[in-house]
Amino acid sequence: MTNLRADVAPRVGFVGAGQLARMAIQAAIPLGVDVSVLAVRPDDAAALVTPHVLLGSPASLPALSRLANASDVVTFDHELVDAALLRRLEEDGHRLRPSPAVMAVAQDKVMQHELFDRLGFPVPPWTRARSLDDIERFAGEYGWPVVLKARRGGYDGRGVWVVPSASEAAGVWLAAGAAGLTLLVEQWARIEREVAVMVARRPTGESAAYPVVETVQVDGMCREIIAPAPVAADLAEQATEMALHLAETIGLAGVLALELFVVDGRLVMNEIAARPHNSGHYTIEGCETSQFENHLRGVLDWPLGATSLTASAVATVNVVGRAGGPRLATALPAALAVPGVHVHLYGKAARPGRKLGHVTALGGSIDETLTRARRAADLLMGPCAPEPQNN
Amino acid sequence: MTNLRADVAPRVGFVGAGQLARMAIQAAIPLGVDVSVLAVRPDDAAALVTPHVLLGSPASLPALSRLANASDVVTFDHELVDAALLRRLEEDGHRLRPSPAVMAVAQDKVMQHELFDRLGFPVPPWTRARSLDDIERFAGEYGWPVVLKARRGGYDGRGVWVVPSASEAAGVWLAAGAAGLTLLVEQWARIEREVAVMVARRPTGESAAYPVVETVQVDGMCREIIAPAPVAADLAEQATEMALHLAETIGLAGVLALELFVVDGRLVMNEIAARPHNSGHYTIEGCETSQFENHLRGVLDWPLGATSLTASAVATVNVVGRAGGPRLATALPAALAVPGVHVHLYGKAARPGRKLGHVTALGGSIDETLTRARRAADLLMGPCAPEPQNN
Repeated sequence: MTNLRADVAPRVGFVGAGQLARMAIQAAIPLGVDVSVLAVRPDDAAALVTPHVLLGSPASLPALSRLANASDVVTFDHELVDAALLRRLEEDGHRLRPSPAVMAVAQDKVMQHELFDRLGFPVPPWTRARSLDDIERFAGEYGWPVVLKARRGGYDGRGVWVVPSASEAAGVWLAAGAAGLTLLVEQWARIEREVAVMVARRPTGESAAYPVVETVQVDGMCREIIAPAPVAADLAEQATEMALHLAETIGLAGVLALELFVVDGRLVMNEIAARPHNSGHYTIEGCETSQFENHLRGVLDWPLGATSLTASAVATVNVVGRAGGPRLATALPAALAVPGVHVHLYGKAARPGRKLGHVTALGGSIDETLTRARRAADLLMGPCAPEPQNN
Repeated sequence: MTNLRADVAPRVGFVGAGQLARMAIQAAIPLGVDVSVLAVRPDDAAALVTPHVLLGSPASLPALSRLANASDVVTFDHELVDAALLRRLEEDGHRLRPSPAVMAVAQDKVMQHELFDRLGFPVPPWTRARSLDDIERFAGEYGWPVVLKARRGGYDGRGVWVVPSASEAAGVWLAAGAAGLTLLVEQWARIEREVAVMVARRPTGESAAYPVVETVQVDGMCREIIAPAPVAADLAEQATEMALHLAETIGLAGVLALELFVVDGRLVMNEIAARPHNSGHYTIEGCETSQFENHLRGVLDWPLGATSLTASAVATVNVVGRAGGPRLATALPAALAVPGVHVHLYGKAARPGRKLGHVTALGGSIDETLTRARRAADLLMGPCAPEPQNN
């Protein structure tokens, strides 16, 4: 990798080369920022769109060091990194944003719960599950079902189990143990709604919050984003204040998504991601400054851009691979013919269940906007597979 | 150059790798389109931001053929190409959009004037200047001053001379001859205002027009864009209809800018550019679909995106290098602190008079919006050089 403009262009290195780094590269072009990526494969989503690709594992210190040596700031496409390696990089004089301490929290649900507790944020009753007995004892106190969560590595619904009985808990416990996962157990609650709020912060302290959005999950994977979230103003305000307080407390640099549940009309913490997040893809067209641009501005300690909505209603629908779905390039023209939609493809080969892109629509009402975005996304995904027949 | 996704990603090749190709690359990422560039230097603006760079001259058939072989469609960052070479590429089975015939018109002011005449568009009296006598005879009929224009190769005010007398005409004639330029001569008129209109078209016929904008020139170089142009509705409508009619007549694919003058309250043709154009940079944030995205959609024969404004007023100010100006990366944070501006840098080394980037602001009134965009652009350009002192 060469940097022809070392004298003029700030260099940001992403650990990981998925769609988040890809969209950050798009945002980096007008800022004159060079983005490098540490990619596992040459056809990773972001590796396809930058001349600055390093191939290597995010678990390899030599690979991380090569990225850091080619970057003024190292940041992250995902949390699947070893915090100890990140601390080594920091000790070697590299600048990591967010910090290894923040990344340690972002990848660990126990640390997140402890942080939420410490800040007085609303968390359901929970405890570490060090044994199957811990789970049964917890259920004895709070009742079945309980929620089991993998301490690390879970996302898109992986690593979360709603368990109705002791015998099912035993099954999850065995499977989790076999996979090397440690668990926590949490009181189950009926979720009315899931919301998220994104904040951006620069090291010298300036921060900005995006509007609170609703995230609609299917099979644990975020499928639709609705901005602004149809929740009471006081709930939105409370979520925003908590996210800003959290960012300040941990000394965030870049963007952070705080995901929450609405339960009985009140907010309950879910989890955080200290990076651009699926719930913020709508900001590319839907806010004055995208989460990707503000992530770059935050990690470079530059003034942040305005975060207000550019339309009354913004809807984003994920494009998720379906069995027998069309080739994206073939389906794209029909999707582009849907009025007023913005299509984002991630350059990935289609595979059932894989996030391949998203569609954003702006408009006056959520219903109409969501309908348009869904229509374009459906054209890209193709028809749903028929239900299995029992006859 | 390898294409890892030949089965999925349409491939567009740009002849030239300046800021227009660079901004097209930004627009190509979400569409999943691979953009290759034929660059003269590895640090050309667009060559810095794509993994698909071919080094070579746009005057070399082998270089153009390499680009065409790596592309599904060949398109253009500039007009400085030999139309005969383009026809060769077409004969070899490559798809060029716009066509060699359109590119021949776009690079030749005589052909443009003939086309305008044929379409009945308003053109000032003009003739080819095959000799100095032709110029003097023309001035004898229409009076001094006259405007001399280089038939080819002029842009940003280069290649246009307002000539007040026969002796000055002789000077330009000699200099032009020495530079190998042929000239046309045109009646001079007092220009009230310069406007431009961008249209997009796909080969199968769908077309779309962007709002008419005012372009403010300094030293012949476009410095500011104001959208919508403060002109009467009937003028805007007439300009739009002419641009759409022109695009249809020549069978345009991609985008085209028609530049016009307002003289005595009426429109007069200036020239065309059959590519994304400085007067359309405001569309990145200021219209629902940018000129760069619609250029790609047009040359790929995909449905075009909506062209309406996203704000009541949009202003773009070019960032042009000044002697003793700051390093852009150093000046950028202050520019980003100006509220609600969108900064675009082209990755070029600063040089006096060179277009290095632009700033766009959106708002409710042109005055306020323009003030903000100017403030950010001035921060990037640094103070004007002091006027020479005569003492």
